[in-house]
Amino acid sequence: MLYLIGLGLGDAKDITVKGLEVVRRCSRVYLEAYTSVLTVGKEALEEFYRRKLILADREEVEQEADNILKDADISDVAFLVVGDPFGATTHSDLVLRATKLGIPYRVIHNASIMNAVGCCGLQLYKFGETVSIVFWTDTWRPESFFDKVKKNRQNGMHTLCLLDIKVKEQSLENLIKGRKIYEPPRYMSVNQAAQQLLEIVQNQRIRGEEPAITEETLCVGLARVGADDQKIAAGTLQQMCTVDLGEPLHSLIITGGSIHPMEMEMLSLFSIPENSSESQSINGL
Amino acid sequence: MLYLIGLGLGDAKDITVKGLEVVRRCSRVYLEAYTSVLTVGKEALEEFYRRKLILADREEVEQEADNILKDADISDVAFLVVGDPFGATTHSDLVLRATKLGIPYRVIHNASIMNAVGCCGLQLYKFGETVSIVFWTDTWRPESFFDKVKKNRQNGMHTLCLLDIKVKEQSLENLIKGRKIYEPPRYMSVNQAAQQLLEIVQNQRIRGEEPAITEETLCVGLARVGADDQKIAAGTLQQMCTVDLGEPLHSLIITGGSIHPMEMEMLSLFSIPENSSESQSINGL
Repeated sequence: MLYLIGLGLGDAKDITVKGLEVVRRCSRVYLEAYTSVLTVGKEALEEFYRRKLILADREEVEQEADNILKDADISDVAFLVVGDPFGATTHSDLVLRATKLGIPYRVIHNASIMNAVGCCGLQLYKFGETVSIVFWTDTWRPESFFDKVKKNRQNGMHTLCLLDIKVKEQSLENLIKGRKIYEPPRYMSVNQAAQQLLEIVQNQRIRGEEPAITEETLCVGLARVGADDQKIAAGTLQQMCTVDLGEPLHSLIITGGSIHPMEMEMLSLFSIPENSSESQSINGL
Repeated sequence: MLYLIGLGLGDAKDITVKGLEVVRRCSRVYLEAYTSVLTVGKEALEEFYRRKLILADREEVEQEADNILKDADISDVAFLVVGDPFGATTHSDLVLRATKLGIPYRVIHNASIMNAVGCCGLQLYKFGETVSIVFWTDTWRPESFFDKVKKNRQNGMHTLCLLDIKVKEQSLENLIKGRKIYEPPRYMSVNQAAQQLLEIVQNQRIRGEEPAITEETLCVGLARVGADDQKIAAGTLQQMCTVDLGEPLHSLIITGGSIHPMEMEMLSLFSIPENSSESQSINGL
């Protein structure tokens, strides 16, 4: 059996009891290592699970799926995913390969950023299409995702923006020379995302278009959702450019315009104090 | 401290390790009992958690929140929610009350139907606004939610339909006479939801409108997501009227029209066999 097990969002203890039991009895346990990170490292997981974990980066999952699935028809193999196995990134490819090989599979679900963002008080059912914001380079500055934000806002829907994660990235030089030397991982902050959004807004104004959002649009920045030191900050897009949310991972929500009074009351718990770039941590802790 | 703890979707072991530790050391543990159900009852939870649970139905949470929050400033109180505390139903009201009383709170997240539906292979980021389908009565047959389905489909988005749950419902007679006698709980099936949807489609045709969906629209029925005997069936809306998904809880997805090849390949794992009203269970188990 192939088990796809969600680890949740915080630390080693965010796995479910069911998930932990399966991890402890599987013959091999892989840790998906390319789409997300927990606030703790592989070693902390290994210690708590009392199991050796095999790191599986994107290349391995795509190119060596057969290794992962080896003997999974006669033994149990676990594939661990931060968040939920069918959350922000789906692992349909692995499931489909397993199915073709006649290997049964099971999913052990957990929280993912796709549902845990509800903790800020905005209602999940009022979220429209989720977008991804990628790091701009000098030559590649995509704006196309902005149409989706616009459509969501026109329909009164909030937009969850997943922010870019670059792990196992090669410099152009190393890539050309075929050297498997990787840059340090990079995680987009709410500040960077907000700055890119404001640049798009300004570009649209220059082109004479009316932007769907402005400097004053109400946004919510979230950091390390589900972890002990989680931070949430509600404020304008302009404020999101400077608010200090600390370490990764960050996510950004662009609100949908019409906000229910209960949503607003919840957001007020997290509002950025006047004349401050500091966010309040959840619970005021 | 007030802890809002998600229980996930299946059985007692779907709680996270972190959640279980908190449950075992809190001075009082409430179980929210009005928006959802696990496949196991209160007793099974009590046995596994080794804690007595206090059932809190909607009336109690709304009218006696102060009891729930009593002494939570000097001791730890847990409020358990099937799924995630900020999933399909938010518990913002309890959080806001706690905050006003100066009681700190923490959320321990888990899977909810809002993200676990990804297990059918449809990509979560492509879901639009979530709708609720309620039991029709002879005199109350709301169709307004259908506009949201239409808008989602116009934008190529899938629609998750949460199906009605009636617990602690009083008959009109008992309500009038003030007798606290409750009807047996009712849970809308995918069949019932599909039949109501088809009736709306037919009403729209009678009125000369072009319905956003037809008998042939691709849908996905899901039952007991996250449980061992989970079932998923992909087929037309017409097929959803007769497919047998077994016991509650059920959910229905109306696909968004444009479906990615990978989504389609995943759905094909769950397609309803020709000449059959039987769905395939996940994994073919």
